[in-house]
Amino acid sequence: MNILLIYDISEDRLRRKASEMCKDYGLVRVQYSAFFGRLNRNLCGELKRRLADLLKDSCRSSVIILPLHQESLEKIIKLDFNYSDEDVV
Amino acid sequence: MNILLIYDISEDRLRRKASEMCKDYGLVRVQYSAFFGRLNRNLCGELKRRLADLLKDSCRSSVIILPLHQESLEKIIKLDFNYSDEDVV
Repeated sequence: MNILLIYDISEDRLRRKASEMCKDYGLVRVQYSAFFGRLNRNLCGELKRRLADLLKDSCRSSVIILPLHQESLEKIIKLDFNYSDEDVV
Repeated sequence: MNILLIYDISEDRLRRKASEMCKDYGLVRVQYSAFFGRLNRNLCGELKRRLADLLKDSCRSSVIILPLHQESLEKIIKLDFNYSDEDVV
């Protein structure tokens, strides 16, 4: 399934590790705190557990994983202003 | 329709204005750079145009508006660690 993963993590070190973890699972950074990609249910559950373990002692963190319906992808609205993929990789 | 709006805006002033704009349209902040809410097609188009106008001279900005299917909302995964709504309002 296609997913969007967004996070808000207060600690730089944990945020860096979370972004590496997302990339390890093949997710692509689409904004500074947003990743997109395709994951099966097992891998999605695994990533969730690993993020939960990473962030359990965080001062203040939120992760939202949103399974996306095909219809959502077709109706997505994207506004870019001098924004390229290189900025967020 | 239910939407998720996420942004990555380099300028503090523009980011503040964008967040005020999202709230004006009844969207609720769910993370620092993520808003959720219900908008009809007309209001969604209006918000998109107003954000595009606000950000047209931005150094580096991205806005993604994602219409959400009911199924996505039912399958959402949320991890919170010492994170409350007050932190992001």
